[in-house]
Amino acid sequence: MAVATRSVTELCQIAKRASRTLATLDRGAKDAALHAIADALEARTPEILEANARDMEAGRENGLSPALMDRLRLDEARVAAIAGQVRDVAALPGPVGEVLDGGRLANGLAIRRIRTPLGVVGVVYEARPNVTIDATALCLKSGNAIVLRGSSSAAHSNAVLAAIAQEASGLPEGSVTLLTGGREELAELATQNGLVDLIIPRGGDGLKKALEGVATVPVIYAAAGNCHVYVDATADLDAARRIIVNAKTQRPGVCNAAETLLVHVDAAKDFLPGALDELRNAGVELRVDARTKTLAGDGFADATDEDWDTEYLALILSVKIVDSVAEAIEHVNEHGSGHSEAIVTRDVAAARAFQTGVDAACVYVNASTRFTDGGEFGMGAEIGNSTQKLHARGPIGLRELCTVKYLVEGDGHTR
Amino acid sequence: MAVATRSVTELCQIAKRASRTLATLDRGAKDAALHAIADALEARTPEILEANARDMEAGRENGLSPALMDRLRLDEARVAAIAGQVRDVAALPGPVGEVLDGGRLANGLAIRRIRTPLGVVGVVYEARPNVTIDATALCLKSGNAIVLRGSSSAAHSNAVLAAIAQEASGLPEGSVTLLTGGREELAELATQNGLVDLIIPRGGDGLKKALEGVATVPVIYAAAGNCHVYVDATADLDAARRIIVNAKTQRPGVCNAAETLLVHVDAAKDFLPGALDELRNAGVELRVDARTKTLAGDGFADATDEDWDTEYLALILSVKIVDSVAEAIEHVNEHGSGHSEAIVTRDVAAARAFQTGVDAACVYVNASTRFTDGGEFGMGAEIGNSTQKLHARGPIGLRELCTVKYLVEGDGHTR
Repeated sequence: MAVATRSVTELCQIAKRASRTLATLDRGAKDAALHAIADALEARTPEILEANARDMEAGRENGLSPALMDRLRLDEARVAAIAGQVRDVAALPGPVGEVLDGGRLANGLAIRRIRTPLGVVGVVYEARPNVTIDATALCLKSGNAIVLRGSSSAAHSNAVLAAIAQEASGLPEGSVTLLTGGREELAELATQNGLVDLIIPRGGDGLKKALEGVATVPVIYAAAGNCHVYVDATADLDAARRIIVNAKTQRPGVCNAAETLLVHVDAAKDFLPGALDELRNAGVELRVDARTKTLAGDGFADATDEDWDTEYLALILSVKIVDSVAEAIEHVNEHGSGHSEAIVTRDVAAARAFQTGVDAACVYVNASTRFTDGGEFGMGAEIGNSTQKLHARGPIGLRELCTVKYLVEGDGHTR
Repeated sequence: MAVATRSVTELCQIAKRASRTLATLDRGAKDAALHAIADALEARTPEILEANARDMEAGRENGLSPALMDRLRLDEARVAAIAGQVRDVAALPGPVGEVLDGGRLANGLAIRRIRTPLGVVGVVYEARPNVTIDATALCLKSGNAIVLRGSSSAAHSNAVLAAIAQEASGLPEGSVTLLTGGREELAELATQNGLVDLIIPRGGDGLKKALEGVATVPVIYAAAGNCHVYVDATADLDAARRIIVNAKTQRPGVCNAAETLLVHVDAAKDFLPGALDELRNAGVELRVDARTKTLAGDGFADATDEDWDTEYLALILSVKIVDSVAEAIEHVNEHGSGHSEAIVTRDVAAARAFQTGVDAACVYVNASTRFTDGGEFGMGAEIGNSTQKLHARGPIGLRELCTVKYLVEGDGHTR
């Protein structure tokens, strides 16, 4: 890949041209390209591991944390798993061409609204080199060209992975592009209006802020998740306990983990003491409101106003007693981030009120918030999760990597 | 409406609260509100015309053009037409709650993706006071609160219309809000993140530019339309003539009018002389490429490179001969604005190639580009038209004023 001599604009122009061809490919051609990529990843594993070893060495020299080093590291099994995921994406139904609706108008015009690729998708990401291939597979499957910008700490790994994907795919030059320049590239990529149709950042707040300041092309920002579990007056308290423990502790560092427990006052006395004990035994630090303290004893920190708005991403949970499902809904809409919200209840009216009244991407009844995930939702894979309301809300899968097009057919129709 | 003492933020907070209630309303309640608005508009017509007379007087004093004065003017018939449109919107199916897809997952979770209101929609518009009511009807029908910002030239008319809509609707305060302050309000409205979910500008380039510089909430910009009609080698030449004349002349000032005619070389000799004559007789100024000039004679201006990229919005048409459908597609993708593109052909393969290869919101076969319109498409009404690829592409109707929400129901499910 002799990319060093080309500007970001030139590379995006080549990607745009490639996207014109990709948009016309049948599903079979795209799936064949994905299988060829998977095979090549396996066949060229030694080359990948060699490049990864150079990144790992540089990481050690630069004092990367053990967690980051683990995210950076590839081995034979991890490469095989990446190849397996590419084959899984190939096996998914293709979103392109799906007819969403249509019919024949009164004047005889036949109209169809179909899904069609966005064009060029930029993916900006941090250390994990597997994202290079995961994101590429999803973009190619949905008929898009991809422009990748990874972390410099994974530069060697990403370069080999992206080169293998482009070469093995047999798709036009520019179908898979990795930007390999300096920090100024992010701003260049984010301002390629007319060439780049969407940027998806996969990374922390720093990346998000860096984009927010400069991006003029559309960006779907990765979601923050200040998620709640509300235990209603009529809840099955065993189920409620399982759900809050799962939602808080199964993987506390992710965006669909719960951060606040709301409990109806009528359930509080029976529910809270046992539930809080179990949470504490699971290592959760509890920050509770005054009524919870009165009920459950003094051994808890006070929740401050700030707690209700905080996504801990850690084994910390704030707890509050409410007087009604309406108060729970209001608290969630006031403090939640619109990601994933759950009610535990036996009461159909309460479930209906919560589902209708809560303004969030995913609203659960009697289930943990942890299910918000493209894989769990049967979408096959996701490239991120959105709490925006426009275009994509919830997991971003193949469908969300597409736009629509109206096809209108007449017989010399004029207006 | 004692709005003068409240800040834009306070007004948007009230609108957000109203939107929480609107989101829970059944279709019947929303339709009843719309009928009450329509009735009130008719009952209070004298009050509306009195306010409008004050705007007209100010317009005369300020030297508004006759065209602008006509757009500003209301009379009994126009008010009745506005009321009629509100009833038409009430008669449309409601988008809220529509189940887009869903099913039962392997683990037994039941999942549905449903349409749900965006929340608060800002509509920024120019002189026409009827937009006050048209936009309000569409937003209320789709369960959204609306914050309107009209032109100062229609201030009195808009104030009465918005007040009637809010009062007659019987909906919570803040369901219909009109901003009545100065120019700085636009920037304030456009930065109400978390309160305003979407802004739709309805107006010219000046409005668009004013928003682009400052908006941090999502904006769907009104579409520009550099639209093409491509006459293929096998076209029915009579149909082609009717279509290009219609697409160019039926209403040249709108975004779905054609700006460039592309003609396959094999059809050029039979088609162009007659078609260009007919267009010229209809008052169209023609700017042609060298091959067209050779064929059709010297009486035409030369098309420059700039012409291919120009949306004339006037009785001007650029004309070019191409050698293949592939060249036509390439020209359209290179120069078009992704709005509405048409091929006239008898050849199934050419139609398929054009529909698949052209990257635009609406792609026509054997029909005029002029049909791109929410009303024509059977969507009932539109609040604008989008050439963006994200969220809404093509006419923006009730459906596009909604987002989606996943409803997930379990039985104590944990992950």
